[in-house]
Amino acid sequence: MPAISIKGDEMPASPIRKLTPYAEKAKREGKHVYHLNIGQPDIETPQIMLDAVRNINFKVWAYTPSEGIESYRNKLAGYYNKLGYAIHADDILVTNGGSEALSFAMQACVNPGEEIIIPEPFYANYNSFTRSAGIDVIPILSRIDEGFALPPIADFEAAVTSKTRAIAICNPNNPTGYLYSREEMEALRDLCLKYDLFLLVDEAYREFCYDGREFVSPMQLDGLEQHTVVVDTISKRYSACGARLGCLITKNKELWNVVLKFAQARLSAPAVAQIAAEAAIDTPQSYFDAVKKEYTARRDTLVTGLNAIDGVFCPNPGGAFYVVARLPVDDADRFCQWMLEYFSYENQTVMMAPASGFYNTPEAGKNEVRLAYVLNRDDLKRALICLERGLVDYPGRIGL
Amino acid sequence: MPAISIKGDEMPASPIRKLTPYAEKAKREGKHVYHLNIGQPDIETPQIMLDAVRNINFKVWAYTPSEGIESYRNKLAGYYNKLGYAIHADDILVTNGGSEALSFAMQACVNPGEEIIIPEPFYANYNSFTRSAGIDVIPILSRIDEGFALPPIADFEAAVTSKTRAIAICNPNNPTGYLYSREEMEALRDLCLKYDLFLLVDEAYREFCYDGREFVSPMQLDGLEQHTVVVDTISKRYSACGARLGCLITKNKELWNVVLKFAQARLSAPAVAQIAAEAAIDTPQSYFDAVKKEYTARRDTLVTGLNAIDGVFCPNPGGAFYVVARLPVDDADRFCQWMLEYFSYENQTVMMAPASGFYNTPEAGKNEVRLAYVLNRDDLKRALICLERGLVDYPGRIGL
Ligand SMILES: Cc1ncc(COP(=O)(O)O)c(C=O)c1O
Ligand SMILES: Cc1ncc(COP(=O)(O)O)c(C=O)c1O
Repeated sequence: MPAISIKGDEMPASPIRKLTPYAEKAKREGKHVYHLNIGQPDIETPQIMLDAVRNINFKVWAYTPSEGIESYRNKLAGYYNKLGYAIHADDILVTNGGSEALSFAMQACVNPGEEIIIPEPFYANYNSFTRSAGIDVIPILSRIDEGFALPPIADFEAAVTSKTRAIAICNPNNPTGYLYSREEMEALRDLCLKYDLFLLVDEAYREFCYDGREFVSPMQLDGLEQHTVVVDTISKRYSACGARLGCLITKNKELWNVVLKFAQARLSAPAVAQIAAEAAIDTPQSYFDAVKKEYTARRDTLVTGLNAIDGVFCPNPGGAFYVVARLPVDDADRFCQWMLEYFSYENQTVMMAPASGFYNTPEAGKNEVRLAYVLNRDDLKRALICLERGLVDYPGRIGL
Repeated sequence: MPAISIKGDEMPASPIRKLTPYAEKAKREGKHVYHLNIGQPDIETPQIMLDAVRNINFKVWAYTPSEGIESYRNKLAGYYNKLGYAIHADDILVTNGGSEALSFAMQACVNPGEEIIIPEPFYANYNSFTRSAGIDVIPILSRIDEGFALPPIADFEAAVTSKTRAIAICNPNNPTGYLYSREEMEALRDLCLKYDLFLLVDEAYREFCYDGREFVSPMQLDGLEQHTVVVDTISKRYSACGARLGCLITKNKELWNVVLKFAQARLSAPAVAQIAAEAAIDTPQSYFDAVKKEYTARRDTLVTGLNAIDGVFCPNPGGAFYVVARLPVDDADRFCQWMLEYFSYENQTVMMAPASGFYNTPEAGKNEVRLAYVLNRDDLKRALICLERGLVDYPGRIGL
């Protein structure tokens, strides 16, 4: 039997899925499992988008241009320009989800054997895309006690080597929900200009900023035009994860042209999703207002509830729909598995994502978990009760 | 300004697109251009599929499982089992087009710096997927005078090194339309078993076999269970290129599990496409019969017409919807450009894909072109007249 590639063997398994067999077992045993482990929102997709799907009127479901349908890119440019990005449709390249945009951006900016700096904890699939491309991730630790703010710029500077090609962040962040401030974004700009590095910003959660706080994109900062690559997706914005549509934006023409070659190799992005996403740009502001209100309330419920549990600490993040909390446990991987395998309260339990999977530094985040507030408040409250009871019963509980 | 990655710089540009600027110029000058250069069929998508899109009834356009929707995989397994593949739904992994399946398969089977053997001419994007993964393609020349039959097995054996991990073919072939015989498939099986190589077969054009000839998949051959990876797509089968849906099939569990990790990193394939493709499996046989009849007639028109032109030679292929023809010209790249730039007959001209882009060996296929018979017969006849006249006028005409 021929051997699998070493690269394939070493591809990291998804950290949010590794407990799935235990969750399935729990369900088979009749337990209700509150899924706080995944980023699949329960929010409804805008009606205008679903209607666009139902109203398709082509006879041949044909390839679209590799860079995306022109009318969609034009309208999309309008969406970004309302936010002050000052871009043209020609700066946009439509992709198969934000995932593909990330993979293209990394490969276009960084060679195999070269380095990309990413503050940790970060979205675990960055490891998959870099591993697949032979790129080394240099993690910079951000700290729960500082609410996962951008680590000191000195930490980044200390990590820059002759192999460094890019810095990547996700804003607002998955898994921490942290929303980077204007000062932090400007500090990153100065750093990227100083060392001539690409700044890759994953803005998957742009529309999810709370408490009236300002969202700052490098697209809005002067001087970074040639250095900035923004990765975006409609997955979360319109709760349309299954559409598989994202995009990459850069004003750097040379870079755009290289990304186009990657895009041409895979021919095109999905046609129906583009038609629906073009319609979605007319989603009324009231939709976003309602969604934001709902998420803010959920976050408040979750963060307040977590901090009320003895020994638990959870910063109150400004965006996305995740939090990372520190628990009074020896090992969050073990605890999360135990919650599924051995615990139940009124026949219910909670599935969380151990935060270790979002850190590259060994042992980092060992007693932290990520919770996604993708359930309604009543379910969140019930999940919090399970968590509180679980922490009382868990044999590996420690003082903090 | 930061430097683009060398890998990105070296990504091959699409050979079927490199003449696009000349085609656009021709159109601006008012010429009608017959597009025989691309593989976008004009055939209508089955009504049952379009209806499935129009009848979607979910409220949240959610991620689907990374390996594909279960009901779709089940039904898909039924489709393959009718063909005698003897597979389970669990052997299938649904992908973003055949393109992604190719890229996953190559990365899972071959490490960067290792080799994959492919008879040339081959689908040019294989170069993009391998280049992106750092894999070396070892081309084995197939010959137009032999109708592009499988090159002698001795040629393959001579190319096997300690770095060879896989052999890839496309059956029926793009660009040649060649349909591999059972004997050829068995010869490849024996070779793969002898050297313990993966056999990667791209079956994008499976449904397009003519003259009652038999299609043979390695899935139907004994002894190759652990070595075979089949790549498939609904793009051509249902004329649904814009759906972006394909799949990878392998009975090798270890390999399947590695491919799953790549699939999990990009989360999921498009949801609506899967719903539509599940419905499409009930497409009546009459649809395929009509399509085959139409393509057979087109092929006959094109091949007969080509061979009737002085100095032109075109084998009559058994499948797909492409032919590769030899023209009495010094350089097909130059000729194809000239046809767009300087030639017109009754204000019409033809766009063809120079075959050089499908060969890796320098100078190979220099006077060959690929023609896709994706236009109706009347248009094909008019395109043939243009080609005939063009060959008369072309200053670089040579005797053959
Ligand atoms: C930070 C971040 N980036 C990118 C993605 C990829 O999203 P998609 O491929 O669905 O657009 C996700 C999905 O959860 C994410 O959380
Ligand atoms: C031989 C071959 N393989 C794979 C593909 C990829 O098709 P898709 O990604 O649309 O499934 C094509 C498309 O033309 C092809 O010709």
